[in-house]
Amino acid sequence: MLNRLGEQTIVFTNKPRVLGSCSIVGPKEGKGNFGKYFHKVLGDDLFGEDSYEKAESKMMQFAITEAIQDAKITKNDIDILFAGDLMNQITSSSFAARTLQVPYIGLFGACSTMAESLIMGSVYVDGGFAKYVACATGSHFSSAEKQFRYPLELGTQRPPSSQWTVTGTGCSILGCGESPISIVSATIGKVVDWAVNDVNNMGAAMAPAAMSTLKAHLDDTGKKPEDYDLILTGDLGKLGSEILMDLMEYNGYKIGNNYSDCGQMMFTSTQKTFMGGSGCGCGASILNSYVYDRLRTGELKNVLFIATGALMSTVSSQQGNSIPGIAHAVEFCYGGKKDV
Amino acid sequence: MLNRLGEQTIVFTNKPRVLGSCSIVGPKEGKGNFGKYFHKVLGDDLFGEDSYEKAESKMMQFAITEAIQDAKITKNDIDILFAGDLMNQITSSSFAARTLQVPYIGLFGACSTMAESLIMGSVYVDGGFAKYVACATGSHFSSAEKQFRYPLELGTQRPPSSQWTVTGTGCSILGCGESPISIVSATIGKVVDWAVNDVNNMGAAMAPAAMSTLKAHLDDTGKKPEDYDLILTGDLGKLGSEILMDLMEYNGYKIGNNYSDCGQMMFTSTQKTFMGGSGCGCGASILNSYVYDRLRTGELKNVLFIATGALMSTVSSQQGNSIPGIAHAVEFCYGGKKDV
Repeated sequence: MLNRLGEQTIVFTNKPRVLGSCSIVGPKEGKGNFGKYFHKVLGDDLFGEDSYEKAESKMMQFAITEAIQDAKITKNDIDILFAGDLMNQITSSSFAARTLQVPYIGLFGACSTMAESLIMGSVYVDGGFAKYVACATGSHFSSAEKQFRYPLELGTQRPPSSQWTVTGTGCSILGCGESPISIVSATIGKVVDWAVNDVNNMGAAMAPAAMSTLKAHLDDTGKKPEDYDLILTGDLGKLGSEILMDLMEYNGYKIGNNYSDCGQMMFTSTQKTFMGGSGCGCGASILNSYVYDRLRTGELKNVLFIATGALMSTVSSQQGNSIPGIAHAVEFCYGGKKDV
Repeated sequence: MLNRLGEQTIVFTNKPRVLGSCSIVGPKEGKGNFGKYFHKVLGDDLFGEDSYEKAESKMMQFAITEAIQDAKITKNDIDILFAGDLMNQITSSSFAARTLQVPYIGLFGACSTMAESLIMGSVYVDGGFAKYVACATGSHFSSAEKQFRYPLELGTQRPPSSQWTVTGTGCSILGCGESPISIVSATIGKVVDWAVNDVNNMGAAMAPAAMSTLKAHLDDTGKKPEDYDLILTGDLGKLGSEILMDLMEYNGYKIGNNYSDCGQMMFTSTQKTFMGGSGCGCGASILNSYVYDRLRTGELKNVLFIATGALMSTVSSQQGNSIPGIAHAVEFCYGGKKDV
């Protein structure tokens, strides 16, 4: 029997549970709209380390460790850690995995990694290949700017279409056990490239991928946008989420009423982030705090989380390539059976 | 029921099959020890492209397309492509996925990616989350040298402990169907770091990870090294594989008789590669040609393939970090049931 619906969607018959979570963010994110919901807000975005890369890895380690505690299990119970990040060769994740000493699968889906890791984790738990898994991702403004754009010290002016990489990490523990949050289905995205080549306009580059995956999810499951309390994208930002709404309307779906984007919501209007937040940690930190809090109480009952990623590198852009996007979707619901 | 043995090993109850494969390599590899076994040897390592990065991505695309043909299915039958490579943000894989237009999960395990992708694919097929999957990885000497070491034009002298990144790609198609090659079990590695910080000695950095995973596999399954016709590591090279044999002997296991390393075997002694081949494509190209050929005929009946990866980046090394290693193991066997 195949646990699939349509072309791209997986259905979880045993409904893996979200047993614990943690989000940790930097000072700027702490002053944003979700500051009071995050589990930890750093006063110093170096987190006591001597480089932003080391700080990013330490945040990952912190989030995973705290999420394990939140799930009331121990590190030794974790069968597999699924993690990835934006750094070249995902060193933030790998160095965190080095410290944690649990079996580790490295992922790269750019800013789609929170959804990607949750899909991997759900499949392993649902199929009986793991009892408990940790799914984590994060990003850091300063390490990302330095790697993808300009040295911070240059003080380069930012164009109006740009977004601000979130300094934040999120981790979810999935497994068997009691929890009101179930993972019901997941839709794995295809790479979509509409020839956007402006590296300062990630929202436009990723919106077609979000449209593709959301449309595939609705086609595969036979659901309508209004069947969800919340459709939440990871980091399309203001412009990208407007493009997604337009593209969905063009395809015959109106998603305005129950649709939000973590990038658009992360910062306040006075924080000068132009189109809002971006990065793996943007969706990851909000999902693992605010959204799960509302799924735990039943305030939200059906949530479709769609994390989008831009799959370019500085080299691919310098060689004249456009920016390919991808989006993966995870469907959460409130309630479920006690045992997986 | 949990499909697990011990701490790190997964057991596949339905035994996913290897239905098709392809390997493609560069000119130097074609002149090496396995030249006649590879499916395609390029005359020009640019493969008609204007950059090595684009050539690497085109090789990935070629291997996946040919492997799908070899499996006698079509691109539309592929439920998920699992792929990764060494390039920053794994652009070789993502750009190949852009052309192929199949649901895509990006992985990063450095040179362990062939085993990592096979494990992901096996879990999806075994658990009924996919009917057919493609598992691919590759590397390119010129793109890797440029990214990790020095500009090729410098003609920098290579130290004796160094290895030569293989220009090569391999792809396996897994799924339901008839095939004499089954995947029986897999062991997911932990990150192991014994404080090696010489980026010209990857074999030494990765050997402890290979030891850790091989030991975990034997402990978990209760098997002995002599239960395998072949234990094959991906790219430890001459020095690394000697270190692995020493480490295993220290742990009470003698693996000399049935143990080989793809990196050590790839090139002839006159090809001046010092410790031999390395890179994702090293193990991937030999596994997907020579090894599968022998598993298909029953000449090899039990093969344990262990791909090892070094999880550093240029930035992590520049910041004084040592080189963390990881190894994942996949157990193949000849014969099996017809249906998954």
